[in-house]
Amino acid sequence: MKRDLFTPDRLFCPGPTPVPRAALDAADELSSIYHRSDEFYKVAMRCSDLLKPVFGSATNPIILTSSGTGAMEAAFVNLTAAGDEVLVVNGGKFGERWEKMAKAYQCPAEVLAVEWGAAPTPDQIVAALQKKPATKAVFIQANETSTGAYYPVQAIAAAVRKVFDGILVVDCISSLGAHAMKMDDWQIDAVVAGSQKGFGIPPGLAFIALREAAWKKLSDRPRFYFDLARERKGQAEGRSAWTPASSLMFSLHATLEIIEKNGVDAMLAHHDRLARAARAAAAAMRLELFAKTCPSNALTAITVPAGVDGSKLVKRLRQRFGMFFAGGQDQLKGKIVRFAHLGFVSQFDLLDGVGALELALAEEGYKSDLGAGVKAALQVLGS
Amino acid sequence: MKRDLFTPDRLFCPGPTPVPRAALDAADELSSIYHRSDEFYKVAMRCSDLLKPVFGSATNPIILTSSGTGAMEAAFVNLTAAGDEVLVVNGGKFGERWEKMAKAYQCPAEVLAVEWGAAPTPDQIVAALQKKPATKAVFIQANETSTGAYYPVQAIAAAVRKVFDGILVVDCISSLGAHAMKMDDWQIDAVVAGSQKGFGIPPGLAFIALREAAWKKLSDRPRFYFDLARERKGQAEGRSAWTPASSLMFSLHATLEIIEKNGVDAMLAHHDRLARAARAAAAAMRLELFAKTCPSNALTAITVPAGVDGSKLVKRLRQRFGMFFAGGQDQLKGKIVRFAHLGFVSQFDLLDGVGALELALAEEGYKSDLGAGVKAALQVLGS
Repeated sequence: MKRDLFTPDRLFCPGPTPVPRAALDAADELSSIYHRSDEFYKVAMRCSDLLKPVFGSATNPIILTSSGTGAMEAAFVNLTAAGDEVLVVNGGKFGERWEKMAKAYQCPAEVLAVEWGAAPTPDQIVAALQKKPATKAVFIQANETSTGAYYPVQAIAAAVRKVFDGILVVDCISSLGAHAMKMDDWQIDAVVAGSQKGFGIPPGLAFIALREAAWKKLSDRPRFYFDLARERKGQAEGRSAWTPASSLMFSLHATLEIIEKNGVDAMLAHHDRLARAARAAAAAMRLELFAKTCPSNALTAITVPAGVDGSKLVKRLRQRFGMFFAGGQDQLKGKIVRFAHLGFVSQFDLLDGVGALELALAEEGYKSDLGAGVKAALQVLGS
Repeated sequence: MKRDLFTPDRLFCPGPTPVPRAALDAADELSSIYHRSDEFYKVAMRCSDLLKPVFGSATNPIILTSSGTGAMEAAFVNLTAAGDEVLVVNGGKFGERWEKMAKAYQCPAEVLAVEWGAAPTPDQIVAALQKKPATKAVFIQANETSTGAYYPVQAIAAAVRKVFDGILVVDCISSLGAHAMKMDDWQIDAVVAGSQKGFGIPPGLAFIALREAAWKKLSDRPRFYFDLARERKGQAEGRSAWTPASSLMFSLHATLEIIEKNGVDAMLAHHDRLARAARAAAAAMRLELFAKTCPSNALTAITVPAGVDGSKLVKRLRQRFGMFFAGGQDQLKGKIVRFAHLGFVSQFDLLDGVGALELALAEEGYKSDLGAGVKAALQVLGS
């Protein structure tokens, strides 16, 4: 398989996402600033302030040095006690993670199993809560990255709040920036996110915001590194509890400044537009979406057509064109290709991704009207 | 206070330490590689392999995405159960951290309090163990960063192992690279370290190595993000459990390659030489070391002379010369200046640090034979 050497490596996997030049430069130039200095505190606090509108939160999000899973753990260990009954929605790898975490932290979990590629309905969640009236906390995803399904968080939260005043936590790791989040308005207690998704910087920072009411509901479970009360106290004093990944913080500052300049609404509209273009391209290529009824604006999961091996397709995209798409995990291995358009993916990146997908599918023997995908994508982008 | 604009910012604080150009470039060029790719696994595994001789470990260290405190927590939650009696040595801010962690994780702690600036003797630790024969685990520092004291870890481990076969954990966050560690030979169960110290990259990665015997002693305490069994299983399969801080991993790879090329022994000798030069400079400036009997090779803590305010001195070093020294914490605030020579600090950096210290002290009114410090330093460096 011969590499097209004119094409630089490009990321279309659902994290890490492309890192803008300004963010790379910020990490480089500024990485030697001491993290216990006023200069650094200002940058860190400004980052937290700039995160607020993305979360829809009046409180300052906490910036952790960890992967997104660390922020999930922070939500779990600060907002539940051992023995608390919890409800988790499991519709893919990340719902499964909430379930595993509940087990690790000794919380009996009612699991609402959702078919992979589907989303739970508000009614299903309400029914599960009514079945288990002792439930103390609910853990869901906004975006199930493994299937490309977006869950209707606003409607879910509205339905849940009619019957439940316990803890509601939403993993927005791969949705923030691509889908609206108004955690205060929607009465969501905690939202978690990660740096390498919509925020366009390398992995290593994770974010968690608690609405003001949730800060009053911290449990007394043993915790240390992810102790949010300690982080909040530190933030008020202008410092993180532990040494932060400072070079990444400078990169984050750079991308958040871009996001602020464009505006959060424009960012959401951009993702909506790119997602519609990706879906139109798939349809024009006679390919089916895997998450038919609830496709995400962060990534488009496409069912690989009969006769094509999805793992080979992903490998070809990488080895021929340097384009990193993601395949399916577990039972979806070889069956889907995940095309992310999250964070700092431009409309022309998207066009290139579609083009590469068309070329690679043709090389894998798929018969199609070559170019139909890019044509359909451009029609959406230009409309 | 006028800034000397010809002097670029430079780090003499005990972490973060200077980042070599090669490490910055590696993060920049390579940050877009997908962390679930063979290319990335190779780099991550090579990093773990290159860490082994620095730890003196036959097993592969685990690379975590967190601050050093995260690695301390990983040691604690994987090697103790709630209710276990533990012994901690508290001779500064980081010993205090073990004590707080024991409290958070419900382990009754016998605290061996050591005067700040001193080191515990092997006999003191053995006596504490004999006083508390039910002790399950011992937690100490190799280097108490807050006071500049190096604890005689080899002698401590030898004495402890004569009377104790429980868990022995050493926080080497600020000592690895500057002081020898042979965890297997010395029968230390777990050693923790951090990326922004001897390894010369920005903060965000932490390391923990368990000797083979310790891997068989994992407790069943609830844990998830810092679950080392999961990390080890992942490592065997060529992947980290959670998304790693991949750009930092590439930087780490660059500095570990430099360390390997020079050799660990040469790295230790370099730190010994720089530390001797810093101590000689302090003596020539008629300044006293704060950790008189056990000065570290990673940093030199100097008592600020009568009539000089240490906080002002540190501020002046920063504002006049762009040099980030660290002051004292808690009861040492204003009383010491900490001059780190850890990681990728060259002999000429050290000379500059001494020179800046002399100039700043003179500007703060300290009477001395200006230049005596750099002269003494150069005599050691050239001997």
